[in-house]
Amino acid sequence: VDTFDLNADVGESFGAWILGDDEAVLGLVTSANVACGFHAGDPRTLRKACATAAANGVAIGAQVGYRDLAGFGRRFVDVDPSDLADDVLYQLGALDAFARVAGTRVAYVKPHGALYHCTVDDAAQAGAVVDAVRSYEKSLTVLGFPGSELLKAASAAGLPTEREAFADRAYGGDGRLVDRRVAGAVLHDPAVIAARVLRLAQHGEIEAVDGTVLRVDARSVCVHGDTPGAVDVARAVRDALTGAGIGLSSFVAV
Amino acid sequence: VDTFDLNADVGESFGAWILGDDEAVLGLVTSANVACGFHAGDPRTLRKACATAAANGVAIGAQVGYRDLAGFGRRFVDVDPSDLADDVLYQLGALDAFARVAGTRVAYVKPHGALYHCTVDDAAQAGAVVDAVRSYEKSLTVLGFPGSELLKAASAAGLPTEREAFADRAYGGDGRLVDRRVAGAVLHDPAVIAARVLRLAQHGEIEAVDGTVLRVDARSVCVHGDTPGAVDVARAVRDALTGAGIGLSSFVAV
Amino acid sequence: VDTFDLNADVGESFGAWILGDDEAVLGLVTSANVACGFHAGDPRTLRKACATAAANGVAIGAQVGYRDLAGFGRRFVDVDPSDLADDVLYQLGALDAFARVAGTRVAYVKPHGALYHCTVDDAAQAGAVVDAVRSYEKSLTVLGFPGSELLKAASAAGLPTEREAFADRAYGGDGRLVDRRVAGAVLHDPAVIAARVLRLAQHGEIEAVDGTVLRVDARSVCVHGDTPGAVDVARAVRDALTGAGIGLSSFVAV
Amino acid sequence: VDTFDLNADVGESFGAWILGDDEAVLGLVTSANVACGFHAGDPRTLRKACATAAANGVAIGAQVGYRDLAGFGRRFVDVDPSDLADDVLYQLGALDAFARVAGTRVAYVKPHGALYHCTVDDAAQAGAVVDAVRSYEKSLTVLGFPGSELLKAASAAGLPTEREAFADRAYGGDGRLVDRRVAGAVLHDPAVIAARVLRLAQHGEIEAVDGTVLRVDARSVCVHGDTPGAVDVARAVRDALTGAGIGLSSFVAV
Repeated sequence: VDTFDLNADVGESFGAWILGDDEAVLGLVTSANVACGFHAGDPRTLRKACATAAANGVAIGAQVGYRDLAGFGRRFVDVDPSDLADDVLYQLGALDAFARVAGTRVAYVKPHGALYHCTVDDAAQAGAVVDAVRSYEKSLTVLGFPGSELLKAASAAGLPTEREAFADRAYGGDGRLVDRRVAGAVLHDPAVIAARVLRLAQHGEIEAVDGTVLRVDARSVCVHGDTPGAVDVARAVRDALTGAGIGLSSFVAV
Repeated sequence: VDTFDLNADVGESFGAWILGDDEAVLGLVTSANVACGFHAGDPRTLRKACATAAANGVAIGAQVGYRDLAGFGRRFVDVDPSDLADDVLYQLGALDAFARVAGTRVAYVKPHGALYHCTVDDAAQAGAVVDAVRSYEKSLTVLGFPGSELLKAASAAGLPTEREAFADRAYGGDGRLVDRRVAGAVLHDPAVIAARVLRLAQHGEIEAVDGTVLRVDARSVCVHGDTPGAVDVARAVRDALTGAGIGLSSFVAV
Repeated sequence: VDTFDLNADVGESFGAWILGDDEAVLGLVTSANVACGFHAGDPRTLRKACATAAANGVAIGAQVGYRDLAGFGRRFVDVDPSDLADDVLYQLGALDAFARVAGTRVAYVKPHGALYHCTVDDAAQAGAVVDAVRSYEKSLTVLGFPGSELLKAASAAGLPTEREAFADRAYGGDGRLVDRRVAGAVLHDPAVIAARVLRLAQHGEIEAVDGTVLRVDARSVCVHGDTPGAVDVARAVRDALTGAGIGLSSFVAV
Repeated sequence: VDTFDLNADVGESFGAWILGDDEAVLGLVTSANVACGFHAGDPRTLRKACATAAANGVAIGAQVGYRDLAGFGRRFVDVDPSDLADDVLYQLGALDAFARVAGTRVAYVKPHGALYHCTVDDAAQAGAVVDAVRSYEKSLTVLGFPGSELLKAASAAGLPTEREAFADRAYGGDGRLVDRRVAGAVLHDPAVIAARVLRLAQHGEIEAVDGTVLRVDARSVCVHGDTPGAVDVARAVRDALTGAGIGLSSFVAV
């Protein structure tokens, strides 16, 4: 590839509770998944995240999630698809207001946490997310897991889609992420992570925990912004890619 | 006057809790103050309210409020003006998404409850509301109490403004509303209310509790949508005005 | 049987939103499942419900639910069992404060909505509820569906248990409730419902939708408090039972 | 004095958001103001805080606050006193459940943030807090600012009271705390803070910003747990007191 995208979650603070270092992360990535207030993100945090992203030329994505602050959107909620579509639309509009005020627009949508995982396989919730996006703005890209129901529904609905890989997560031989609760599921060594991303960007390959070499067709990689060392990881990945002559740019126009 | 506006609060249900009869109210008024989720209004309720308003040619206003579901936005919250501006912008954007999907746009903003009352006198909170509105869309009208800090700030910011009166509330001799907790502060008889509104529309007059005849320059009147008998009151007011040859239309283009 | 229990959900209002007629219901039932603030029920509502229940000699049960006001606790949430136990304990303690102030105590626990349905089959969530109850007070009765994992776990933990039937719900031939979304799943005719409850109380039988006569071993029946006509149904059931010489009393000491 | 008390706020994390280092703080203080879920503190956090406090012999206090997670309870809310009393009782009962499960009980009550500041002067809200405490348990101590309406109301109601000073806050010549927004209002140097507390403990004196030497009758001092360096400050204060032969123990029996 000539260019590659780094995406990270930002805007996940809430009131007095600070999570991650948005300023630093937004200096390193090319696409920002900004929380929208349902799983995290108060309005002040959203404003700051959008303003900083816009100032840095980082694309703004709506990181929509379940309405569950106490669970940080990490717990599946069996919400009716019609209600889910409304919840997504609400979040989209709210975030877009801050993007507009920052002189730009929300450019893509990526579900958060349990909603992300649910919409890999659940066509009903995936369809609800896509319905909301399409009704709001047909030019919005949907960012998701390769082969997911979410991306299938988005494509079927005529929305642009983009596939992503995960920089700091172990993959199983089946191409799925290893469950977070399994030891070794989350990688921490910036050098190891950077090497994996470079191999992905150059060769489209990720090595699974069982040694299988997976073919992964993705031109964006998610680096987590809310873990200790997140900034170091993002910097290492960025340096590895640019060092190899791979440009960094979002998959959407900024 | 040739035309007059009836505005009412709608969209104030939340989840399993239903408040008011939005369908009926939206068949009678010309402007709808739609809750935005902070004091009331879940996304499903907002979608329905916007869709019905759009279908009926009713103007959609953002009824922004304090973040206080338990208090229904009726309790003053000493929120920092900068945070308040962000809260208002968040609500505005969220509601506007539903308006857009319904084929229209939010056309005006009216604070709810304690925020409405606070911004009559509090220049800091009034300024915060106005900042949010102006940053989002300079063509949005601000609807408020005649002489309020809110309308002054909106005018100073170059925003269109509109003044309203209250159909079912008693006025003091000073032109202020009588406190809700005072006996007689809320009028209930549809015929009495309709007669007061007709006098207001025709002569710009409201009789205060002390007999003073107040000059009230307003071309919109608020009829409450969440009280028992609200629909009957709205219908009586509407019939009185149209019966006198006064057309009903919003103060904003629909 | 000599005596039978009528239980109903109360305390489900929230702030400005009123649901059900607690005063009327608490004049008819013998056990009150009082919401605890997570799916419904603000503190004021809980205080009033506990005070009225105590004044009427109605047993107070903690109607614990998922933390989901927007969904009224009717949506399954895949909450970690350890967190669920903490959530239940929090709710139990909060409600018990109002019961104590009213001169009594929470006497039993009944999960609400989706948590009720989940704990029929899900041993992990059922175990979490039971863990919380046992850790708080070993004398608390757990009220639930006959044969449920909840009641099994409660019995295994040494807690008293009580089985209940549903007055206004259709049963399948398998002894399960017919899904609410199926036509005819909810019964509305007070006379029909009263006759079913009388047959249950006298003969331990409920007729399923396929004609099967189910053996149901329950000495409590749930009459819903939040539906239109709920009060009429409760009264009809009460009259049918007392008319047949069956006394009404809670399954717990009041 | 022979013994002195160190109190600190704990239990203020919420879901994925961690605030402060409760484990460390609970190893240093003698009284813990545990958040109760309205301004901060999810049930898991409360359980852990109570368990650790109990294990360390630290007294548990209910740090009751306004229902305002987004504002962390730092914004005045004009809540009706009757509703406030119910909100306080709810929080008290919820926290007490975790204290009981940890083998102890809530021993005192201290309002948080804006509620603390409001009840210094506002007799209505102060009275509401006291009403709730008294109705729940007459042996609960109320911890507050010397001369506050809160302590007056508590005394009048027959509740035990205790006065506290603030270790890391500047005082004005009038004996009030300097507003947080004023430069220098919050002290950071552990040595300076420790020396001030020692002087307070030994001589009952605090030097105000204008040089006035204030007489402060307090046998408890609040060290904040949620600021950077909080643990260092608590340790320095503890060491200074014990080094001077002053024992550390809570003002309530543990």
